[in-house]
Amino acid sequence: MKRERNGGIWDFEHGIVPATGGQDLILGLDGGTTSTVCISMPIFPFTNGSLPPDPPPVIARAVAGCSNHNSVGETAARETLEQVMADALSQSSSTRSSVRAVCLAVSGVNHPTDQQRILNWLRAIFPKDVKCFVHNDAVAAMASGTMGKLHGCVLIAGTGTITYGYTEDGREARAAGAGPVLGDWGSGYGIAAMALTAVIRAYDGRGPQTMLTSNILKELQLSSPDELIGWTYADPSWARIAALVPVVVLCAESGDEVANGILLDAVDELAQSVKAVVLKLGLCGQDGKEECPLVMVGGVLEANRKWDIGKEVISRVSKEFPKMHPIRPKVEPAVGAALLAWNFLKEESRQEAFGS
Amino acid sequence: MKRERNGGIWDFEHGIVPATGGQDLILGLDGGTTSTVCISMPIFPFTNGSLPPDPPPVIARAVAGCSNHNSVGETAARETLEQVMADALSQSSSTRSSVRAVCLAVSGVNHPTDQQRILNWLRAIFPKDVKCFVHNDAVAAMASGTMGKLHGCVLIAGTGTITYGYTEDGREARAAGAGPVLGDWGSGYGIAAMALTAVIRAYDGRGPQTMLTSNILKELQLSSPDELIGWTYADPSWARIAALVPVVVLCAESGDEVANGILLDAVDELAQSVKAVVLKLGLCGQDGKEECPLVMVGGVLEANRKWDIGKEVISRVSKEFPKMHPIRPKVEPAVGAALLAWNFLKEESRQEAFGS
Repeated sequence: MKRERNGGIWDFEHGIVPATGGQDLILGLDGGTTSTVCISMPIFPFTNGSLPPDPPPVIARAVAGCSNHNSVGETAARETLEQVMADALSQSSSTRSSVRAVCLAVSGVNHPTDQQRILNWLRAIFPKDVKCFVHNDAVAAMASGTMGKLHGCVLIAGTGTITYGYTEDGREARAAGAGPVLGDWGSGYGIAAMALTAVIRAYDGRGPQTMLTSNILKELQLSSPDELIGWTYADPSWARIAALVPVVVLCAESGDEVANGILLDAVDELAQSVKAVVLKLGLCGQDGKEECPLVMVGGVLEANRKWDIGKEVISRVSKEFPKMHPIRPKVEPAVGAALLAWNFLKEESRQEAFGS
Repeated sequence: MKRERNGGIWDFEHGIVPATGGQDLILGLDGGTTSTVCISMPIFPFTNGSLPPDPPPVIARAVAGCSNHNSVGETAARETLEQVMADALSQSSSTRSSVRAVCLAVSGVNHPTDQQRILNWLRAIFPKDVKCFVHNDAVAAMASGTMGKLHGCVLIAGTGTITYGYTEDGREARAAGAGPVLGDWGSGYGIAAMALTAVIRAYDGRGPQTMLTSNILKELQLSSPDELIGWTYADPSWARIAALVPVVVLCAESGDEVANGILLDAVDELAQSVKAVVLKLGLCGQDGKEECPLVMVGGVLEANRKWDIGKEVISRVSKEFPKMHPIRPKVEPAVGAALLAWNFLKEESRQEAFGS
């Protein structure tokens, strides 16, 4: 069990009178670049073949800031992760001795070495018999759509975009997610950067006139396309540029051809990412006709307007993989992470029952 | 005349015994983001209709660092500009009283307010009767190709790209130059970013295989396309990415279709910039058949290999504007700036002669 390195983080445990009757818990954590969420969930029975309750019963939910070690550094990331897990347990009136499994899905975990480092640190926090799982955040997004099953494809399109795929026998693949310089054109950033470019091109005579000009200038309270240059380079945050996506959608809905073209290109890009992953892993079988879940998350896909980017991506993907079934998760990724841990425990218990 | 604000910058003047026989001089300065060059040139006679001597006689040449006020701040930029002018004069064994005209062409001068601010400061340095001109650096590039005449189009394509056009009656227009986020695809940065993207796409299955993969990885001493992501975002310098252009050209020359496509797209983009400026200013007349110089500068256009980007741009532009004649300057931009000042002086003397 862990040395009390971080002072008071676990002090609350001394005062806990188990209110949940010593109920065993799972912790699911989704750690992103903007925020980190940890939820606690009771262990529900592993009847063979059973699915988790829908909706899954969440006991407590704690929120913290960024836990991507690439952004805030190793020490700060760990402290955030440890604190948010402690908060979730404290809110559950439970201690670490009630925890059966922890699943951390953290952005920035891209290599087995990252995974192992976090795993070692995590194991030092919890009692020895707690099962610990560490993945990147795409895994939590996937599991949030499949109730904890790691099989299929997950397309994430927010400020950035990335596609992951997982086979039932444990292989995985990814496409895109290399950042804006390296061609994540279907991302919110990509769409908005194309729209800003279209405004500049209309202004200097390289491109056709577009409604994007007046609408983007109004949104940003600028008076001339000239000022877009200063605006763009004043702040390197990708999210700030990606926030213009709704303006692009609005212009496309109003019939603007340039905006429409930008969204159609984005749909192409996103569909290509899915296709690449499906083919690489053979997720829809050799003939492309097998069933496979496609979990879709992120602001770009949730636009939910007349011009629905997510819907167009599905329609494009379905042409090649007719049995790919789209899922828009009803639970948040942290719950997905907890369900994933539950599934691992279930599988383990099944194997034990069979004596394997 | 200027207060000796900057301590010793002009101290050398006290020791000058005019070695050039009190010869009148022009200073031409080209101030960029990487370096600043100032040259001094004797005043040669303004015989009516005469052209400047070819090659123009340069007496001295001084070099300094960045003088873009957006990059290093106003104070540092001014100090650099003042020092490099003093160095050029000192090397010419002359003092400010020998100077007839100064032309500063400095990057980052985009608005009349920038121009006026620098002009006021410049006038305080030199005696009252010295003619002072302030422009952005594209003007010097233009003048370096036309021996000081500000008429025609200048296409600059190095790390970035921008096109400027000037009419004989003083109008001007520009295209592109809005930076990489805003679509300067024909730039060195744009070409290299597309090549890096192509490597990522080939790797994750979204795009075709390409020779760019092995060649770029070798150039950067990386072992996998995965590592390109870290490499790209480790250093935000655009020039570092643009330095990959020769690798792209090499692959295109070896018949790689992806590299070839990237270069053809860049040619399209650059030709579009020229076309936009020519049409906006009517530089080739209403029918597009009139003569007009096209000055071409920057590393992307000087590639001078079998796959010659500059040559392809010319061929594309010539289809629409058959009498647009390409010029690759034989003198450097600082000399162009000096020739521009000479032309202004000549024009003034002509007008005086006519009593206008």
